[in-house]
Amino acid sequence: MKLKLDRSLKTPLYLQIRDQIGQLILSQQLSPGYRLPPERKLAAQLGVNRTTIVNAYHELAADGLIQSHVGRGSMVCIHPTMNQDRIPIQPVSWQNYYSSQAERMHNPVLASILDEISEEDQISFALGAPAGEYYPLKELNEICKAMMHAGNWQAFAYGPTIGHLPLREYLADWLRLRGIKTQAQNILITSGSQQGLDLLTKIFLEPGDFIVMEEPSFLGAIGVFKTAGAHILTIPLDEEGIRTDILEQILSRRRPKFIYTLPTFQNPTGTTMSLARRHELLKLAYQFHVPIIEDDPYSELYYEQGPFPSLKSLDEHEHVIYLGTFSKMLLPGLRLGWCVAPTTVLEQLSLAKQHVDLHTSTTTQWIMTDFCNQGMLDQHLSLVRNQYKRQRDIMADTLTEFSPPGLSWVLPSGGYYLWCELPPGINATSLLRKAAEKKVSFVPGNAFHIHSGGKNLIRLCFCHHTEATIREGIYRLCTAISELLNQPSQGRPAHRHHYRETLV
Amino acid sequence: MKLKLDRSLKTPLYLQIRDQIGQLILSQQLSPGYRLPPERKLAAQLGVNRTTIVNAYHELAADGLIQSHVGRGSMVCIHPTMNQDRIPIQPVSWQNYYSSQAERMHNPVLASILDEISEEDQISFALGAPAGEYYPLKELNEICKAMMHAGNWQAFAYGPTIGHLPLREYLADWLRLRGIKTQAQNILITSGSQQGLDLLTKIFLEPGDFIVMEEPSFLGAIGVFKTAGAHILTIPLDEEGIRTDILEQILSRRRPKFIYTLPTFQNPTGTTMSLARRHELLKLAYQFHVPIIEDDPYSELYYEQGPFPSLKSLDEHEHVIYLGTFSKMLLPGLRLGWCVAPTTVLEQLSLAKQHVDLHTSTTTQWIMTDFCNQGMLDQHLSLVRNQYKRQRDIMADTLTEFSPPGLSWVLPSGGYYLWCELPPGINATSLLRKAAEKKVSFVPGNAFHIHSGGKNLIRLCFCHHTEATIREGIYRLCTAISELLNQPSQGRPAHRHHYRETLV
Repeated sequence: MKLKLDRSLKTPLYLQIRDQIGQLILSQQLSPGYRLPPERKLAAQLGVNRTTIVNAYHELAADGLIQSHVGRGSMVCIHPTMNQDRIPIQPVSWQNYYSSQAERMHNPVLASILDEISEEDQISFALGAPAGEYYPLKELNEICKAMMHAGNWQAFAYGPTIGHLPLREYLADWLRLRGIKTQAQNILITSGSQQGLDLLTKIFLEPGDFIVMEEPSFLGAIGVFKTAGAHILTIPLDEEGIRTDILEQILSRRRPKFIYTLPTFQNPTGTTMSLARRHELLKLAYQFHVPIIEDDPYSELYYEQGPFPSLKSLDEHEHVIYLGTFSKMLLPGLRLGWCVAPTTVLEQLSLAKQHVDLHTSTTTQWIMTDFCNQGMLDQHLSLVRNQYKRQRDIMADTLTEFSPPGLSWVLPSGGYYLWCELPPGINATSLLRKAAEKKVSFVPGNAFHIHSGGKNLIRLCFCHHTEATIREGIYRLCTAISELLNQPSQGRPAHRHHYRETLV
Repeated sequence: MKLKLDRSLKTPLYLQIRDQIGQLILSQQLSPGYRLPPERKLAAQLGVNRTTIVNAYHELAADGLIQSHVGRGSMVCIHPTMNQDRIPIQPVSWQNYYSSQAERMHNPVLASILDEISEEDQISFALGAPAGEYYPLKELNEICKAMMHAGNWQAFAYGPTIGHLPLREYLADWLRLRGIKTQAQNILITSGSQQGLDLLTKIFLEPGDFIVMEEPSFLGAIGVFKTAGAHILTIPLDEEGIRTDILEQILSRRRPKFIYTLPTFQNPTGTTMSLARRHELLKLAYQFHVPIIEDDPYSELYYEQGPFPSLKSLDEHEHVIYLGTFSKMLLPGLRLGWCVAPTTVLEQLSLAKQHVDLHTSTTTQWIMTDFCNQGMLDQHLSLVRNQYKRQRDIMADTLTEFSPPGLSWVLPSGGYYLWCELPPGINATSLLRKAAEKKVSFVPGNAFHIHSGGKNLIRLCFCHHTEATIREGIYRLCTAISELLNQPSQGRPAHRHHYRETLV
């Protein structure tokens, strides 16, 4: 039974309570025989005096809607006296129908950010998206032209839940070249790697389960794990990645369902886990029988030296479930990712996916298969590695040029992001507001934190914009920081809005 | 603690139990201090004699792994005596990590069916898919050619979770022509209507919640509701659709979270709810404050008279949430459906979708938008209405021509399916086996039932094949029925296999 009191109204609280409970009874949302909460309990819940509830119940009894018995409390009458037909049809109070999962979905940090970046003339360093100008549109056009002919209706038909076999075969080969010993039957095609996270959550997590993740970490993962009702145990990172010493302490006390990690060019910090740390992490996973979910969207985007071995490629005992995606290294709009898992897990994931969306779009899978089989993925990777490296350097150089003293960052050796620490006294949320005035945006660090923390950190994506726009945007950002530094007070925190856009 | 006994082994059961529990302790899957289940309880669970468990626990105590105390039961020792380092690395026992939701996902009816239809030379009347020969591939080719040019990279970029605005605007107009008063902001684009069902389940259902649905009904809906742990209250259908008299009785006793219904050309029965019944259903929904989820994939495929008004179009009080899809009326491989809902529900669904897959493929949405805006959807509908009507009639005529006495069906006035009652004594599952020998398949009626029932019913889809193939397939099917009728025993039930294909 949910009641909402409005203290700004003239109607006394006990009458508000009487009216709302009366409404619930007359509309049969509270059934005959329903036992109302004890007066003291409802009073505590609503934050009112017990007498207020006593009065409200008294009124309801006088109306013939409830009966009170000393020692047994109050219950809804079997035949409430009012005439059913006189009740006007009420709109559904949807919030009373939501699941506990739905109630865990709110994400105010994101909500406030996203409204800031929705305006047209903003330069957004918030969205972790590849640059549209490099999308291979000409090649995609050619592929579609060749693919969409009369005999090829299968490209638009239902397909298997696990995914298009030729795409899974391509990926198996491609992953084998990267040291991951797998085969097509252990690869599930997902609608982006976000879906992989959701499916894994679905098959593994129960409300109250413990999981382990790095802090800070990918906000899409935080959101899905929180929604599932997981207790998140956080492990800090240092320059070699996840702190395995702290992890070991935690594992000796708790049994998490899994460890979620993003070892290469981590989002948001850009950190890459050292080889030694990777081995330590695997050793702990084996010792404590904890599976690892390795999220690996960025590893192909290396700007200094060749690719790092994934945890999956180092795993000799099938403890690692691996998530990949085309979204960051190629383009996100086809919504194609994949999950590599042991056979039994893959079967369970496929069963879950069948319920969730039957299968990922056949058409987009066929397009991607042709693209990959014509050798265009590796070609594209060479191009963007080169470009994104330049963009990273331009962003860093421009920051060096314009930033006020106290701003610091570590140049990542790959991936998408510069993770910056603001000068002392500057709060990321306040800066977001000031930056919005200057038409530039970013993601404040607290969005990537499970508990508190990150308030003096910001994430800047250097991939999405051209070099000139990066320079202009960073100039604006530095101006905003400088102005805040010279301002006595930082003003009110940013306003919270409803969800508008996708943030990744 | 999950143990699996194999009675075909020579190892005595008490030693199998000892070994498995010992393994769980040594691998730390059972923590020090973990209290083992009482002997009597574990015996009942495993279906063994209590002495067997007593002996197993005795062995474990002798090994120094557990301690038993009279009256307090047995617990894992704080320091199991065996040396940690001597334990070889064990593979993860994944089934011990699954959520209760994962454990509810099994769907053996489907599993056995799907294996039957996966062979190449089978004529499958099982899959509810449109005919590939009518897919507008030439038009799609033209659309992609025009769309995929350098300036148009947005067609491959991230997009809003709620969906591509021009597509939602088109749908709002299209639905308004069908009496549904809505607007783009109340429409969420989903990855097929299956995803709509999954998202609604996510935001509304808690394990143990009651919901109402017709029986028989769409198996994808049954699967997703069962997985969520819902208690499904079933209402039978008559020739006017859902039995509202029975529904009323149920609603006066129970408060379901929602009523799921497929009112027009129902899957699998082909039944269309009468107008009077639609009004009665809405009246009950208003009276008992129960939302309705209206699933409407087939209503545009009418073969006798104009479209029926949807429940949503008759709903004056926002009690109906409406699901639509392009899969049945156009093609399924783009995975595009939509959900029309009140604003507050739509916001919650969008939030859920953000966690699930960020958004539906931008590219497929752009393709569909162009297709629709060029007036091709309505054009396509005229074509398929005409063709599918012919196919329906050919299937019915061929059944009349070849079926042995006792087979009956009602000709549906639209949609995809003939729902047939088998001659007395013929079981649908046995027939599936016999039919597989003849290289023809269908879905046995029990797949659409929540409890038991449907064993003498089969669903045949008449849309997927050409006229000649339909005749050949029905001839094979009738031969299979005749042979079964003339056979003294029906043989063993069909074998159960793992999941292979998508069935809808």
